[in-house]
Amino acid sequence: MNAPVNLSTLEVGYDIPAKPGMDLADVQTPCLILDLDALERNIRKMGDYAKAHGMRHRSHGKMHKSVDVQKLQERLGGAIGVCCQKVSEAEVFARGGIGDILVSNQVRDPAKIDRLARLPKYGARIIVCVDDLANVADLSAAAVRHGTALEVFVEIDCGAGRCGVKTAPEVVAIAKAVEAAPNLRFAGIQAYQGAMQHIDGYEDRKAKLDTAIAQVKEAVAALNAAGITPELVSGGGTGSYYFEAASGVYNELQCGSYAFMDADYGRIRDKDGNRIDKGEWENALFILTSVMSHAKADKAICDAGLKAQSVDSGLPVIFGRDDVKYVKCSDEHGVIEDPEGVLSINEKLRLVPGHCDPTCNVHDWYVGVRGGKVEVVWPVSARGKAY
Amino acid sequence: MNAPVNLSTLEVGYDIPAKPGMDLADVQTPCLILDLDALERNIRKMGDYAKAHGMRHRSHGKMHKSVDVQKLQERLGGAIGVCCQKVSEAEVFARGGIGDILVSNQVRDPAKIDRLARLPKYGARIIVCVDDLANVADLSAAAVRHGTALEVFVEIDCGAGRCGVKTAPEVVAIAKAVEAAPNLRFAGIQAYQGAMQHIDGYEDRKAKLDTAIAQVKEAVAALNAAGITPELVSGGGTGSYYFEAASGVYNELQCGSYAFMDADYGRIRDKDGNRIDKGEWENALFILTSVMSHAKADKAICDAGLKAQSVDSGLPVIFGRDDVKYVKCSDEHGVIEDPEGVLSINEKLRLVPGHCDPTCNVHDWYVGVRGGKVEVVWPVSARGKAY
Repeated sequence: MNAPVNLSTLEVGYDIPAKPGMDLADVQTPCLILDLDALERNIRKMGDYAKAHGMRHRSHGKMHKSVDVQKLQERLGGAIGVCCQKVSEAEVFARGGIGDILVSNQVRDPAKIDRLARLPKYGARIIVCVDDLANVADLSAAAVRHGTALEVFVEIDCGAGRCGVKTAPEVVAIAKAVEAAPNLRFAGIQAYQGAMQHIDGYEDRKAKLDTAIAQVKEAVAALNAAGITPELVSGGGTGSYYFEAASGVYNELQCGSYAFMDADYGRIRDKDGNRIDKGEWENALFILTSVMSHAKADKAICDAGLKAQSVDSGLPVIFGRDDVKYVKCSDEHGVIEDPEGVLSINEKLRLVPGHCDPTCNVHDWYVGVRGGKVEVVWPVSARGKAY
Repeated sequence: MNAPVNLSTLEVGYDIPAKPGMDLADVQTPCLILDLDALERNIRKMGDYAKAHGMRHRSHGKMHKSVDVQKLQERLGGAIGVCCQKVSEAEVFARGGIGDILVSNQVRDPAKIDRLARLPKYGARIIVCVDDLANVADLSAAAVRHGTALEVFVEIDCGAGRCGVKTAPEVVAIAKAVEAAPNLRFAGIQAYQGAMQHIDGYEDRKAKLDTAIAQVKEAVAALNAAGITPELVSGGGTGSYYFEAASGVYNELQCGSYAFMDADYGRIRDKDGNRIDKGEWENALFILTSVMSHAKADKAICDAGLKAQSVDSGLPVIFGRDDVKYVKCSDEHGVIEDPEGVLSINEKLRLVPGHCDPTCNVHDWYVGVRGGKVEVVWPVSARGKAY
């Protein structure tokens, strides 16, 4: 699984939905397509923003799960490395040559800790999050066993309501334990406010982030008072990065969805009240689908259902069309209202998925398109890497 | 992708969640586990039912997407073959040696029709659904081109509201066209009432099926009047198979979910008002998950989120526990209410997924367990085969 994929040995249809050079019209659906022009513009834009604001950008690989997309983010957008959520994802990125990898999550299972502690041998900087003193000794023992060094972020729960400690004294206690533990290094703070990213209103999001920033500042002050300086304070997403950048305490962003966009994120508003998918970011990711039945005059059935996407954040939106609407999703079918009967059999439509992350995780391939032609076919390298 | 998988070359964690012989406690989570005893009992029970009622059972492979599970259904449950929804799934089953394959769906794209027409060369009987006269000539031309024979079911929309024709004259017209087309054979009727399967009440489901059965009988009568005898009348699911079996017109069942069960199906009621997962069928499929953070006293965070399941039909249910409850799902995390703080870090829980089909489609492997030990690790052979 480390060798570059040899597309020429794969069969279109059985193994892959398309090959480079193919017309978009011949691509087998449903599949994910990337508008490479839009993707590259998104990546450059975020890179320029981070640079202009003196922030490191660690692009979130849990969204795309692709070594190829990550390398594009590093090459065009100046991303300093990746964050991901699982050891198995970190393994894919390390084997793929990514040099700075944060597992922005807790790792507790003994076998997973062991796998994590081996990863610096690939030449990558490996950082992991901790929210429990009891985890520190286990991480240290594994790093000692493998003769490696692991770095640690203490995770603060600043509103997501999942992992992370809530108070500054807990942050300091864990940081001190990390500093004292063999083969571990305290590298900073993980503070991602996930729950606010999808709130529509800019000021509503800002209010949530202000609270988070105050909590992070308190933790940093407590660390400084204890003689500990966090090298990195990391967080921020597509719905908040400008707040972290202006905070004076964060120095690393972790945006993911900006690169691809999706229907749910697209609905949130920028500071001028505009949808963020109408100016700030472009839709670069689509599910390409085909009409495969039109037995009723006002209803077309397409081939993208629950096996081609996740509908946890709502149904997909048909891109660039207001005459037809995707209204129902079952295992293999999408029902499209077509009141004027304008759609024809085999007509292809671009769906903007409701939620990009779990939608990408259903597919094995990204079909990168430019000018109506398939330019690249990239594996979703960490697809299914959940353990 | 045709050769048997050599598990010994795969690395636990990176490639696979477990290896045969391993204790369940050492399995890397989240992953799918199959309780092999429960699975085998479910399969035998459906097989016995079909045999006792003189019905063919064509088990639905869109649910499990596994050549291994299908072969178990044929060996223990007397299944006569498989149905699936996509050409790419049919390719996997044909290459895997399954001898009777129904694509219970329309195939319209020229490249897909071409792929379908090649499949009889694997030695399999191949049947496909048609709901549009215009499709007949395309299927016939492809079969002629490849020197193969394709069989055709005319699909009736008997309540699912997706593909399929509504009226008996349309059924007859398509059947006649099929009979007249070179290298095609009219094999019968596809009539699956998908929309009623998940209605809770037995009598409510029966009322919907009675309507469907009347529609199918009308179509069969019209075919007979035109001198055409359908060999097979196929349909039925886990929420309805006893109605089709008693109908006097269906002779083939297409049940899928009975083998694994899920939380949404489990809630529907049998004729005595009992949940069907309390007696009729057993939960055989679980998402194995581990607690990986418990930084707040009353809330445990587990490692199975949206990348480990589909929540389109509701959240998963923690099997065998009423003291803790899975209440929220994000990309990589599940939030579990643990009011008494009984869960500990690394504790493993079995989740019954809300909806088995799209949940299986997220995973690469089934870990088959018996007596606390991993007995088999089966690939989800048609995972991601959506095109």
